[in-house]
Amino acid sequence: MIDADGVLADLRELARLTGGPDGARRVCWTDEWVKARDYLRSRLDELPVTVSVDEAGNLWADLPGEREDAVVVVGSHSDSVPAGGWLDGALGIYGALGALRAQAARGRPPVSLRLVDWADEEGARFGRSLFGSSACAGTLDPDEVRDLLDRGGERLADVVGRYDVDLDRAGESHARLANVRAYLELHIEQGPVLESRDEPAAAVLGTFGVERHLAVFTGQAAHAGATPMELRRDSFAATAQAALAIREIGLRHEGGVCTVGGATSEPGVVTAVAGRTEMLLDQRSLDAGQLATMLDEARAACEQAAAAFGCELELRHLWRIPPIPFDDRLIALARESVVASGGSDAAIPSGPLHDAAEMARLLPTVMIFSKSSPPVSHTPEEDTPEADLRVAIEAYGRTVEGALALVASGEL
Amino acid sequence: MIDADGVLADLRELARLTGGPDGARRVCWTDEWVKARDYLRSRLDELPVTVSVDEAGNLWADLPGEREDAVVVVGSHSDSVPAGGWLDGALGIYGALGALRAQAARGRPPVSLRLVDWADEEGARFGRSLFGSSACAGTLDPDEVRDLLDRGGERLADVVGRYDVDLDRAGESHARLANVRAYLELHIEQGPVLESRDEPAAAVLGTFGVERHLAVFTGQAAHAGATPMELRRDSFAATAQAALAIREIGLRHEGGVCTVGGATSEPGVVTAVAGRTEMLLDQRSLDAGQLATMLDEARAACEQAAAAFGCELELRHLWRIPPIPFDDRLIALARESVVASGGSDAAIPSGPLHDAAEMARLLPTVMIFSKSSPPVSHTPEEDTPEADLRVAIEAYGRTVEGALALVASGEL
Repeated sequence: MIDADGVLADLRELARLTGGPDGARRVCWTDEWVKARDYLRSRLDELPVTVSVDEAGNLWADLPGEREDAVVVVGSHSDSVPAGGWLDGALGIYGALGALRAQAARGRPPVSLRLVDWADEEGARFGRSLFGSSACAGTLDPDEVRDLLDRGGERLADVVGRYDVDLDRAGESHARLANVRAYLELHIEQGPVLESRDEPAAAVLGTFGVERHLAVFTGQAAHAGATPMELRRDSFAATAQAALAIREIGLRHEGGVCTVGGATSEPGVVTAVAGRTEMLLDQRSLDAGQLATMLDEARAACEQAAAAFGCELELRHLWRIPPIPFDDRLIALARESVVASGGSDAAIPSGPLHDAAEMARLLPTVMIFSKSSPPVSHTPEEDTPEADLRVAIEAYGRTVEGALALVASGEL
Repeated sequence: MIDADGVLADLRELARLTGGPDGARRVCWTDEWVKARDYLRSRLDELPVTVSVDEAGNLWADLPGEREDAVVVVGSHSDSVPAGGWLDGALGIYGALGALRAQAARGRPPVSLRLVDWADEEGARFGRSLFGSSACAGTLDPDEVRDLLDRGGERLADVVGRYDVDLDRAGESHARLANVRAYLELHIEQGPVLESRDEPAAAVLGTFGVERHLAVFTGQAAHAGATPMELRRDSFAATAQAALAIREIGLRHEGGVCTVGGATSEPGVVTAVAGRTEMLLDQRSLDAGQLATMLDEARAACEQAAAAFGCELELRHLWRIPPIPFDDRLIALARESVVASGGSDAAIPSGPLHDAAEMARLLPTVMIFSKSSPPVSHTPEEDTPEADLRVAIEAYGRTVEGALALVASGEL
């Protein structure tokens, strides 16, 4: 049985060492991140594990099982955003440590159990998130990140080199996944769903697919005083109609979300009808078909809005990623574990991306979310009530135990 | 009878001297403006007029009448925006010169006729428009403009000083209005109304009153992926609903206009629901009651939109000016003159402000607009077909003649 008190004590000590009233400061590739990892190493030193760092800067701790030809990986990330929360990433690391402790306390687990602390999940310094897990999964192209600059003008390749990461060899970390049969990650939700449902924790169904576009409406700039309403080709009005229609699309497709985060108009002054407006559009769903339908509907809504106000429309693709569903057997196990730990039978998708998404491309994967309350993240106010953390940690421990058994029995 | 050919010839020569493919460059308080005025002086030298410049930099040319105790003023402005059009301001100056020429050709007019070339109508260098006419009308506060800086960091007070304008004495130009009984200005429309109605010219009813506000909607910034639609407090959605409702208000109030020129959201990124959005609102009408009603309705629309999306609303006042109606007798005269010159009986309000608005605070005033085609201004593309210019110039000449007669007969 996982010791939730121990996990909470570790989390509090980490927050004391690397946080404060201004929040967590465990930004990857900084001294504070090293300090956070040193604390993790000090905790790992108490266990019969082998600790190593791979070619991408990921830290691994191996607890050999009775069989060593099959491995379950547990983990998350020690790094944070600047002025971040105490739980984002850290909950998953110390939850995984708690799972190792529970298994070590009983002797050897049936198959090997391996903790991973992924390097630079947040991408806070260079803007590229999931650095370590994507290198391990084989989806990181060194040439795409080599020359990324931080605010001080330092190159990513140079900075990670100081932490013994040779960018061109980072992909070799993939070897760590040999014989790995499952990946399990505990994380805070970072959203309001569980709080709104009064659920302490839930299984996670997968990570949303994302479609990002820039909708550009071009009408005619005109003098706000000299141009009667009926002679206008108002690109901001077209944007407003499109934004409201897109919101309705999100509401209509249960589980999907559509967001217009803002718009920029030209000339964009109080005395002129907007001749050109660029609208930011983000759409997400766990279901690829639903995501494609939402995009089709958004395109149609933009076209209708453009036509209604005499504007031209250009829909520019910015970025997309497909939905990455987690493993059905592990989702079922995680749901049962949440119920057994005092929660309800709940499962929700993840809007944010996680290292687990990189693993789910290759391996049976699942996550467990704890409630976020207040429902915010990446700020010092990020939190989860202790009672809810206990449910989540215990559910995670049960899920790890169940996954070890499934792998040992050959079912996974 | 005014000589439209002569007016057009003057306008073309001015454009040749101070314009080109990149447009007019008669920016006030520059050498090119001086050059434009020198050309005007050379034309005035052919007439029996007395030319002088007042304390605000306005140029006057007096043609004495049979009676000198009553005066009709005709004029506009020689200055332009950078890369401006050939007609904005200049049409009114050379139309007024044409009116002086027509009267001088017949001997003395019944009462005195005085041309004015207002200084710095555009405010292109310091951002304060209607400099000369507001100084003359008594509405210019020297302390409000003294320290305005141009792009080169020069102060308005210093720059106008080089053109013999002592800012603290600019208000003394008011003396030029003694015995003035009417002010008449010819100008291009700078908008699409006459083009859309296929009218060459029209009388102007007055200048719009303006209400400018910033509507600030405050909801809750949230992760675009982690926040379900129904848990959002989306300030951009509130803005979109308000903008569309405000457009309907403009459409409903015939003659009024309502413009949302753009909006700025925070965080304003594609991955976040907008927590705060500032919306630009401009409303105009010739009718003070209609303007007040439109503002009330816009406030209600913003409140409803805020409530519909769980946002707070703050409506910040930016600027207002009341409607300035022109003189009914002069409007009737101008309408008749347009008809007599080949146009229809048409009268429209002016969205942009003009020097005539400053005069209309004090004196019976009217303007005549020529069609703008293409319906743009403040660009080198600004134009009016020659046949339409002839109608407008001839209508202006007839209006001046009619106004002189009304003043002579004591009716004005």
